[in-house]
Amino acid sequence: MKKIINDPEQVAQEMITGMLLAAPNKLKQLKDTTVIMRKDAPIKRKVGIVSGGGSGHEPAHAGYIGSGMLDAAVIGEVFTSPSVDQVYEAIKAVDSGEGVFLVIKNYTGDVLNFEMAAELATAEGIQVEQIIVNDDVAVEDSSFTTGRRGIAGTIFIHKIVGAKANLGGSLEEIKRVAEKAVANVRSMGMAITPCSIPAAGEASFTLSEQEMEIGIGIHGEPGIERKPLATAKEIATELTQKILADINLQKNDEVAVLINGLGSTPDMELYILNKEVQQILKEKEIHVYQTFVGEYMTALEMGGCSFTLLKLDDELKSLLDHPSEAPHFIVK
Amino acid sequence: MKKIINDPEQVAQEMITGMLLAAPNKLKQLKDTTVIMRKDAPIKRKVGIVSGGGSGHEPAHAGYIGSGMLDAAVIGEVFTSPSVDQVYEAIKAVDSGEGVFLVIKNYTGDVLNFEMAAELATAEGIQVEQIIVNDDVAVEDSSFTTGRRGIAGTIFIHKIVGAKANLGGSLEEIKRVAEKAVANVRSMGMAITPCSIPAAGEASFTLSEQEMEIGIGIHGEPGIERKPLATAKEIATELTQKILADINLQKNDEVAVLINGLGSTPDMELYILNKEVQQILKEKEIHVYQTFVGEYMTALEMGGCSFTLLKLDDELKSLLDHPSEAPHFIVK
Repeated sequence: MKKIINDPEQVAQEMITGMLLAAPNKLKQLKDTTVIMRKDAPIKRKVGIVSGGGSGHEPAHAGYIGSGMLDAAVIGEVFTSPSVDQVYEAIKAVDSGEGVFLVIKNYTGDVLNFEMAAELATAEGIQVEQIIVNDDVAVEDSSFTTGRRGIAGTIFIHKIVGAKANLGGSLEEIKRVAEKAVANVRSMGMAITPCSIPAAGEASFTLSEQEMEIGIGIHGEPGIERKPLATAKEIATELTQKILADINLQKNDEVAVLINGLGSTPDMELYILNKEVQQILKEKEIHVYQTFVGEYMTALEMGGCSFTLLKLDDELKSLLDHPSEAPHFIVK
Repeated sequence: MKKIINDPEQVAQEMITGMLLAAPNKLKQLKDTTVIMRKDAPIKRKVGIVSGGGSGHEPAHAGYIGSGMLDAAVIGEVFTSPSVDQVYEAIKAVDSGEGVFLVIKNYTGDVLNFEMAAELATAEGIQVEQIIVNDDVAVEDSSFTTGRRGIAGTIFIHKIVGAKANLGGSLEEIKRVAEKAVANVRSMGMAITPCSIPAAGEASFTLSEQEMEIGIGIHGEPGIERKPLATAKEIATELTQKILADINLQKNDEVAVLINGLGSTPDMELYILNKEVQQILKEKEIHVYQTFVGEYMTALEMGGCSFTLLKLDDELKSLLDHPSEAPHFIVK
């Protein structure tokens, strides 16, 4: 598959350079690492918030760096967890004495490396807490995961914990809202076309011209079922039903909705899907508090989408509404 | 080519419904039209700003509706100009008595229909002025255009005129800054993969697995040359040189840079291109005041990019920095 790159082995490093050159007043790179952080970090009297993972999911996670969301993103090679050392350096760099909170997507490599880094930092006297995001209802266990995968719902967790930290929340208070948000968030995706890792040079999977895969992961990991390409309405119905079957939503409950593009799906199609999802929720008398449509957690140039629902209470609503300066999350 | 849609003939209408449902507190639809506008329009004591064109270029133009940018976007069918009536209704709807300014991309259908609508509105006693954006240096005349095409540089024009209107600028003052900005903006694009119009069902052009097209338009109109796929550095050099050959930039001049994805190009590749463009400009001692990287003016799921340079003076810098509430343009 075609790429606009220089060297397949250098894509993550060159992307980082390009990101820093695009926002020289907002971002800095932690020396000799693949960590990008707020230029003004560490922020005094604030818990530091760190996330990250393999690259290829942009704008996740570096696009969520900014006041009200992340202090640092640790960037791995494409679809590859960053190393323990990188995460450890990020933790040290954003700690202002109030401790550091880690948001980890549930992939075996990420969990292992972030938790080991947390142990190293704890041994150095830094307080560290973490949350593992496992919002994808499609499958239990997968190519790179024990349990459920973490996908686009992670962006809501960034927002919630970032807001709580900005409001002066302690590490324990941040952990409490993170646990509530993770308990309340569910996602599921589907794909119509594959992506390819630059260094591999070939598509991560194949689907025929009339086929789609329901429940696929953001690295092309297998989903639940391959079947004929359906309409937007049918796809919206299937994904929403699977999510609703897994989350306790009653009439008059409030949710935030995220319709996420995986890479090559035009905004036009995401908005058509949004029309269908909103109709389904309206029929169930579930109230939509905020809707987000766009590319938030991609899989390189994969064609497809994911839906995320976050069940809200007053606390989560106010954290969702808290200002954010992260360039890829606009508070409505 | 695969699409996540319901009915190929209804994609623009269904997209509009989905857009409105995503932002019910910010946007409204003008009754019986395909015009989306600020919910609080018309804005008293402010010139109304209207743009639009065929759909399929999202987030252009509805994503730029908001305080500091557009008051309304007129949305046509995919790659098809909206009708005279639609534009005329938009003009009437956003006029608060201060007049209306139209930003038109240079395509024959758009120019004809927007200008005819302006004449109708003028006959009704509404003051209307307009600017035609023709930033694409690739080709003179094209499938749908006499003269140069209007592409992603149009977003900078939205920002400049929207800011001037917000600051209380008169119709004449807005026209003056629009003319200056259009005289100072240049763009050029390239593609590696095609898009397909939903109702057509097939790719708008074909390129082999090892081929790219330089200078292509945002509807797949022919560019300058087809040749073997080059590196990001070579592509950045070619596009930047073509732009610089057409604009009078001296050492120490300041520019805004827009690296725009055409639809399916991952952010990773856009940032790698940005790294190269910044290096070229640095070598020429041209100062970059602001950089924007992402999807601003797409061509459905086309793979490729465009570069835009806007030469700045103090007035244009302050207008670029003016706050915007449009969800798809973040002031840096």
